[in-house]
Amino acid sequence: MARIFSGIQPSGELHIGNYLGAVKNWVRLQDTHPGAIYCVVDYHAITGTYDTAVLRARRWGMAKSLLAAGVDPSKAALFMQSDVPAHTELSWLFTTLTPLGDLERQTQFKDKSSKMESIPAGLLMYPVLQAADILLYRADSVPVGEDQVQHLELARDTARKWNAKFDQPYFPEPKPLLTPTRRIMGLDGQAKMSKSLGNTIALHETDEEIWAKIRPAVTDPQRVRKSDPGRPEVCNIFQLHKAFSSDETQTHVAQQCSTAGWGCMDCKKVLLEGMVLELTPIRRRSEELDAEPARVLDALADGAATARAIAGETMREVRGYMGLDVLAGPPAAVASA
Amino acid sequence: MARIFSGIQPSGELHIGNYLGAVKNWVRLQDTHPGAIYCVVDYHAITGTYDTAVLRARRWGMAKSLLAAGVDPSKAALFMQSDVPAHTELSWLFTTLTPLGDLERQTQFKDKSSKMESIPAGLLMYPVLQAADILLYRADSVPVGEDQVQHLELARDTARKWNAKFDQPYFPEPKPLLTPTRRIMGLDGQAKMSKSLGNTIALHETDEEIWAKIRPAVTDPQRVRKSDPGRPEVCNIFQLHKAFSSDETQTHVAQQCSTAGWGCMDCKKVLLEGMVLELTPIRRRSEELDAEPARVLDALADGAATARAIAGETMREVRGYMGLDVLAGPPAAVASA
Ligand code: SF4
Ligand code: SF4
Repeated sequence: MARIFSGIQPSGELHIGNYLGAVKNWVRLQDTHPGAIYCVVDYHAITGTYDTAVLRARRWGMAKSLLAAGVDPSKAALFMQSDVPAHTELSWLFTTLTPLGDLERQTQFKDKSSKMESIPAGLLMYPVLQAADILLYRADSVPVGEDQVQHLELARDTARKWNAKFDQPYFPEPKPLLTPTRRIMGLDGQAKMSKSLGNTIALHETDEEIWAKIRPAVTDPQRVRKSDPGRPEVCNIFQLHKAFSSDETQTHVAQQCSTAGWGCMDCKKVLLEGMVLELTPIRRRSEELDAEPARVLDALADGAATARAIAGETMREVRGYMGLDVLAGPPAAVASA
Repeated sequence: MARIFSGIQPSGELHIGNYLGAVKNWVRLQDTHPGAIYCVVDYHAITGTYDTAVLRARRWGMAKSLLAAGVDPSKAALFMQSDVPAHTELSWLFTTLTPLGDLERQTQFKDKSSKMESIPAGLLMYPVLQAADILLYRADSVPVGEDQVQHLELARDTARKWNAKFDQPYFPEPKPLLTPTRRIMGLDGQAKMSKSLGNTIALHETDEEIWAKIRPAVTDPQRVRKSDPGRPEVCNIFQLHKAFSSDETQTHVAQQCSTAGWGCMDCKKVLLEGMVLELTPIRRRSEELDAEPARVLDALADGAATARAIAGETMREVRGYMGLDVLAGPPAAVASA
């Protein structure tokens, strides 16, 4: 068994940033890793202030969007984390054996908490729930980008600690499955693509909407005139070509750009073709799911049932090893009881 | 509705210390507060090192002992906390809104953690789970001794915070129900009665076993000879008279002691009579339950079913208010989703 687990925040419908950064890999991995576990981690989304109606809408949007992007419920279990409360149960069990110091040392905690006046305990405990997310399914591989490898450390430590404390080689130490992800900058060229910055292209946008966003997008700032040669390697549009255009097109783009053979508008039109090719089927599926929301509900229900079955078995065994099993009668006498 | 909740650690069969300190009140309160929720808090018992076989035996011992002591499953719900995993789910939800500073300031955390080399996160998060224990049943009263009132503060804060954040007067602020408890010193006169110190009398001990423990027990240390008058108010045996003897007997004891009218052995024989009167029916019931362990299992199963029904309703409502309800379809469009 090589089981992969991956979680994604319920941030609403996907944009090309999180699609290329994670979800495209999910779709690929569901074929190579049957029984993959894909989870919309809504228990993680409630620390701090938030609007409950927005959260509800974003949970739905993310689930629908993952299906539209190609997550196939017949290959992978896709579900809402809060439909499997065992995530929180295992998290509590792990809380009892996680050293506080390990949590306080997490880079992410230090970064975020240093900017806060009142730090919610959930921010500190977040990685424990994350470890539970993975280990609940005894997943041995977690697809991550290079910058996320550190996040797995606590899950690996937790598996090791639990196994040592209860003298059972029960939890695998989940390994990072390094996946070729592409960090796409926002269309403003300023920062990471993110919905809150309004510099994204949503997966379900129409060709016209996509074009309206690519057309004015920032390119190589040194290419002021069409006759100036450009530098594809610093241009975000070229990054998008790498994601959406064929190898030949990429070579052609690089050559045309660096020789000032064409203008940026020509280049962007070619990009649009590639994007339309990949995104049209996704938009179609998204429209189908909008018309038939029961398909989203069915997929989530099936995924949750699969997840609950695996999680239930894990919890039964874990509680047994920890002396917390459902009592079945008077246990054998123990000297020091 | 005035619902009480009370929890007790799975420390094995009761001794007269925890019986007089808490459980005798449970038995009284189940009549005045129908539907009381009594929980053996085993999720709380796993922080730090422990022997799983001992824990298992102690969970059983405590459940059986509570029934023997008079907890009546037809009046109160008695159950094992880990049979109702919603305790941990609500605990996670509360973790996201509990300020870390409030937890770090808890006296109990500061005391215990100051003696530890590696502090488990569970020690810090303990009061959040405790708040969830109470609020999961929306209990409004928690029977506590005077020294435990502070423990309720975080549960009260949590109720207030949640109600404010989600703009719902959903959780009552649980009030301490101050109960007449009696702090019994250990028979060695040294410290609080506690199983680990071996200075206790278990509820199910025989008359002979009880006598063998009372006979050598420490009395007023200034009463060296029988002719020395004693000071009942400093004598632990007199504390036990207060718990087990009639008012007349107590008056008689005080008078005989302070006038050196009788010796400590006479005094202890009178105490034994009172203890035998109260403890014999408990020992009988304990023996019956040993012979018929299915009665313990049935009681726990019934209690867990009752608890799960209430807890399930709370979680359904709480998750709804928090935007984490089970999705039923595409939510109404939200501007910022
Ligand atoms: S031609 Fe294309 S790759 Fe070159 S700078 Fe313009 S948009 Fe970027
Ligand atoms: S006579 Fe009784 S109350 Fe007085 S010191 Fe002896 S044991 Fe204690």
